[in-house]
Amino acid sequence: MSKKHNFSAGPCILPQEVFEKSAEAILDFNGIGLSILEISHRSKDFVAVMDEARAIVKRLMNLGDDYEVLYLGGGASLQFAMVPYNLMKVGGKAAYLDTGTWAAGAIKEAKKVGSVDIVGSSKEENYSFIPKDYKIGAEYDYFHCTSNNTIYGTQMKTFPEVETLMVCDMSSDIFSRQLDFSKFDLIYAGAQKNMGPAGVTLVVVKKEILEKSGRENMPSYFDYSQHIAKESMYNTPPVFPVYASLLTLQYLEKNGGIAAAEARNEAKAKLLYDEIDSNPLFETFCVKEDRSLMNVSFKLIDENKKEEFDAAWKAAGINGLNGHRSLGGYRASMYNALPIESVQVLVDVMKSIK
Amino acid sequence: MSKKHNFSAGPCILPQEVFEKSAEAILDFNGIGLSILEISHRSKDFVAVMDEARAIVKRLMNLGDDYEVLYLGGGASLQFAMVPYNLMKVGGKAAYLDTGTWAAGAIKEAKKVGSVDIVGSSKEENYSFIPKDYKIGAEYDYFHCTSNNTIYGTQMKTFPEVETLMVCDMSSDIFSRQLDFSKFDLIYAGAQKNMGPAGVTLVVVKKEILEKSGRENMPSYFDYSQHIAKESMYNTPPVFPVYASLLTLQYLEKNGGIAAAEARNEAKAKLLYDEIDSNPLFETFCVKEDRSLMNVSFKLIDENKKEEFDAAWKAAGINGLNGHRSLGGYRASMYNALPIESVQVLVDVMKSIK
Repeated sequence: MSKKHNFSAGPCILPQEVFEKSAEAILDFNGIGLSILEISHRSKDFVAVMDEARAIVKRLMNLGDDYEVLYLGGGASLQFAMVPYNLMKVGGKAAYLDTGTWAAGAIKEAKKVGSVDIVGSSKEENYSFIPKDYKIGAEYDYFHCTSNNTIYGTQMKTFPEVETLMVCDMSSDIFSRQLDFSKFDLIYAGAQKNMGPAGVTLVVVKKEILEKSGRENMPSYFDYSQHIAKESMYNTPPVFPVYASLLTLQYLEKNGGIAAAEARNEAKAKLLYDEIDSNPLFETFCVKEDRSLMNVSFKLIDENKKEEFDAAWKAAGINGLNGHRSLGGYRASMYNALPIESVQVLVDVMKSIK
Repeated sequence: MSKKHNFSAGPCILPQEVFEKSAEAILDFNGIGLSILEISHRSKDFVAVMDEARAIVKRLMNLGDDYEVLYLGGGASLQFAMVPYNLMKVGGKAAYLDTGTWAAGAIKEAKKVGSVDIVGSSKEENYSFIPKDYKIGAEYDYFHCTSNNTIYGTQMKTFPEVETLMVCDMSSDIFSRQLDFSKFDLIYAGAQKNMGPAGVTLVVVKKEILEKSGRENMPSYFDYSQHIAKESMYNTPPVFPVYASLLTLQYLEKNGGIAAAEARNEAKAKLLYDEIDSNPLFETFCVKEDRSLMNVSFKLIDENKKEEFDAAWKAAGINGLNGHRSLGGYRASMYNALPIESVQVLVDVMKSIK
């Protein structure tokens, strides 16, 4: 069976080399005669994996020793709760930007912990743009934003200057573009887009901010300081997802790092958006200036073409193009590992619809 | 390289078939031309995995539709917190049995949520036995126990009759022996011993008990009812760990289920304990009546034999025999997938020390 063109929104395509090396490690890891699935997380072979998985993130992001890197379980949804438990002072408040379903999920969890101001929201316009007209003063314990909105196909192109801590959920565009990561105090990301398979969440945190926490009696698993003290082994980590994430990041590093990935992602996005803008049958859901390089959410202008279009992209071996159930239409997710050849196949299908 | 005899305490040995099938699925899952690592958790192929992974647990445990099965992230350590958040009423109290390091961890988290009575503890005797002389009345919201203590090599052979809910951390002996699982209201277990690789935690819960929860504003990820409502897909689940767990449980089911596993585990334990009891060089850390079938924690009576013994078992291809750092000595973990041939190799090494 020929390889599919996988536009899945996440979990999503990873480099073929990651599949091959991780399958090998399941049969015999590092040539030690044991599977990666059956070794102790305290064994020297896995400790080396975790150490390198933590170190490579700092190299790729150009961050120094004032940052710590953690690999945790529970997904970004658990981070929605962990962030306010760690960073919101008793009686304090946090500023949140509401740019989509996942941003709203983070807001919901923060409101359970303390006071939340929504400093900008495009909810009334079905999240079709990124609000930009807001100021974040020192009265907030932190500012939280979502860098990319998978469902609506929008992405923050710039980040505000804030007078407090800046926290960002980068689940769906981490490692896809160059940013000054040192502007952020805490970054988190579910691995299952650009950095690995489902089952592990990356947290990058500036150590000094954890001294400011005001919550007592938070669950130990919530406490970033505890995870840091145990070098991301507070309890048994998700061994295989961490290993496959390391393989993905190693592939990124040896293929030009984030800068090269960004160039590839820009070329893929240009190819598809140019087709949407020149083809009278299609349009995006969002405004042009906020279009995501990762997720292109679009629709048919004439719904009568649906049957023909659906049959055509399926026949072309394209997978995962249906839009999120809350928005409908189509969504072409073009994460780091998606080759431009797959985008060309989609564009050719779009051109073929008359 | 020849296959090792893997006595690792967890993550630990799994059936060879699980390694082979999961490696295959990473290269091509179900023959669909995609890796298990790159498919959507909402795809029909993975929804079928999750459905079957939930159903097989109820079949193996002989439980009916009054129970629900969840696969969550964060490990058993996160369950230490989730249990009291869900089951301890405001102003209520819970009873905990303190049988080891992990039981103590659960107690620590429960104390952050409410009032805890430790109804029995062997801490002062270095957890060398299971306390049995306690009664659990209806004044408690629930009773929590740990069925097997990996570090100390003890195991609860019977469970008390209680007048409240019974919650059990079965991380290290789940699916190893026949029990009347319907006596328990909530069972949880990190997968990484008898049921799969690290990165996913099983929760089996009697639905009706969740109506009794008294906590408001708990983090959504903590709320078992939310996970049940979303059929264990509240957020992206740890896809690969769930799949490998399903493969492990399918292997168990087709090889005689829990009854056959129990017979194999009893034979392995008898072989090793008989050697310890007849060999003047070795002794266990715990009392005979509470000896675990899963983890045999033992030591050399004469520490001068350490160098010889260590060299001998390493030369025999044995892996993972060092005791936990908090206890020292040795620990032979003999989970479901460990063949009796590996135990015989260890016994032969023990006999060879003079």
